[in-house]
Amino acid sequence: MAVGPFTQDELDEIYAFAVDLGRKAGKILMERVDQRISDANGRSNSFEEKENAVDIVTQTDEDVEVFIRSALEAKYPSHKFLGEEAYAKGQSRDYLIDEQPTWCIDPLDGTVNYTHIFPMFCVSIGFIVQHKPIIGVIYAPFTDQLWSSCSGRGAWLNETRRLPLIHNPTPPMPANAPSQCIFSCEWGKDRRDIPDGNMHRKIESFLNMAAEVGSRDGRGGMVHGVRSLGSATLDLAYVAMGSFDIWWEGGCWEWDVAAGAAILLEAGGLMTTANPPDDVDTAPIEDVQLGSRLYLAIRPAGPSTTETGRETQERTVREVWRRVRNLEYSRPGA
Amino acid sequence: MAVGPFTQDELDEIYAFAVDLGRKAGKILMERVDQRISDANGRSNSFEEKENAVDIVTQTDEDVEVFIRSALEAKYPSHKFLGEEAYAKGQSRDYLIDEQPTWCIDPLDGTVNYTHIFPMFCVSIGFIVQHKPIIGVIYAPFTDQLWSSCSGRGAWLNETRRLPLIHNPTPPMPANAPSQCIFSCEWGKDRRDIPDGNMHRKIESFLNMAAEVGSRDGRGGMVHGVRSLGSATLDLAYVAMGSFDIWWEGGCWEWDVAAGAAILLEAGGLMTTANPPDDVDTAPIEDVQLGSRLYLAIRPAGPSTTETGRETQERTVREVWRRVRNLEYSRPGA
Repeated sequence: MAVGPFTQDELDEIYAFAVDLGRKAGKILMERVDQRISDANGRSNSFEEKENAVDIVTQTDEDVEVFIRSALEAKYPSHKFLGEEAYAKGQSRDYLIDEQPTWCIDPLDGTVNYTHIFPMFCVSIGFIVQHKPIIGVIYAPFTDQLWSSCSGRGAWLNETRRLPLIHNPTPPMPANAPSQCIFSCEWGKDRRDIPDGNMHRKIESFLNMAAEVGSRDGRGGMVHGVRSLGSATLDLAYVAMGSFDIWWEGGCWEWDVAAGAAILLEAGGLMTTANPPDDVDTAPIEDVQLGSRLYLAIRPAGPSTTETGRETQERTVREVWRRVRNLEYSRPGA
Repeated sequence: MAVGPFTQDELDEIYAFAVDLGRKAGKILMERVDQRISDANGRSNSFEEKENAVDIVTQTDEDVEVFIRSALEAKYPSHKFLGEEAYAKGQSRDYLIDEQPTWCIDPLDGTVNYTHIFPMFCVSIGFIVQHKPIIGVIYAPFTDQLWSSCSGRGAWLNETRRLPLIHNPTPPMPANAPSQCIFSCEWGKDRRDIPDGNMHRKIESFLNMAAEVGSRDGRGGMVHGVRSLGSATLDLAYVAMGSFDIWWEGGCWEWDVAAGAAILLEAGGLMTTANPPDDVDTAPIEDVQLGSRLYLAIRPAGPSTTETGRETQERTVREVWRRVRNLEYSRPGA
């Protein structure tokens, strides 16, 4: 399947390059972890000296981004490159993705996990053409798990297991969703204790999703489980796998979700906005804007006896919207 | 180091047997997952038919428990055996661990994760002598991670990496803990929307731990991250690793924590009660009662310039107690 200026053969080659690059970048992340473990008397007595730990992470982040950027610029000099670290150092947080073929990468997602050596950290490499994420690579080196996808070639775990894991046939969303669903969400960094601020709106939403059916003015969703991993990228990888049914989040950026969105969409998932529209029953369910900072992802789903797979997903989107609050995350230029 | 009637040599042999048993049991769990993935047209179209999925899990749970129990009874006929499944089917939930050498096992922890094929599930095998968990084996087969410990022999990841991962020296708890800490907690199964019930007390406690310092009447803890994995056993494994700094939970049972407690304690961690005493500043910090259903775990910690490692842990316990509510989980006979 051709996409924009690319033939399938060209995409296949770019995909193979991205997978290899993801593995190599993850290896660097893991080498630095091993250094910290074996060299603890040195600079990495870092739980005590926070500055120190932050420095290590920042340095690793930068080194891995430079490694990825150099490799991509050498191989594909005509492609655009956007990395989290380059963004963070720049003046602007404008949304910079346009029609051009663009690499959108996060050298290290799950930074807090990385600092604490909790294995839920990863490198994330997304390739976007005409605003569509079409190739995604996510590699978590501690557990050696790689999620990847290429438009027209399916989505995979470790290049051998097709996503979603149960796909023959892929089950529909539960008839009583969000009940029976695993709900993935994050507490995030905004911890300001402002009445009706983002933190309280999030927690109220989590509570609605979790509470028994019939409670909370009919909003109780009685999800099967609530999970928080501390990595938006891995949250999306697990939604693409079918492990998580619903991911709802505000505040992260396009480099956190570009690769995950590519993998989720190729696997048959749905991604739209986190914020409920005025009329949750009838509003069209539009594709997410990659730079919107507001994301709701639903796992791949097949048909039930009465609905298409997409209908079961859209029904779930509306049930989530009924239970969550609007979050306030703006961005310059968006 | 001898424990009760056992010499170190005897413990070493029991430990080796338990590690091998954990790996074999985990392999059965993973074989069943592979069956569900490859055989999805059959009985495992299970997201839709919940009864079906529950049946699969129940059957796996039982099969693996029988496998472990048979192996242990053949090898160590004089030891007592307590398994989650045997408990669940019995009439009583009395606490049955006494002075005798006792195996306390959970054939499958993280049942909801297992149903949804989220990799955070595991087998858990604990060996208890004179009320002390002295051998622990936790195996998560999807990511092939094994945590283990034997009294006198240290605690390990995959039998090669010593726990906690950073141990040379092991860092103290942060001076401003719970700030800079990763806080691990679970939403659990009790979702009744009762004012001041367990669910609301939990969420209030989570919020206190998460909110910015200075907020919430001084209770804001501004933890570095809040994580929920859906497996008490793996939560404890990650505390023993040093990845999570604090785990606070009510409602689980001794088979959920026996192996994890053995590993955590051997790694240098601390485990006490989740419920704050009347005087959080001066109350003695006592070892947890394995059957208490109320657990607070602190990661292994070394000395700072002014405190012993234990002092940094005890200081952290009191800071957690200041921020959390009492939970109500009773048990018959306890």
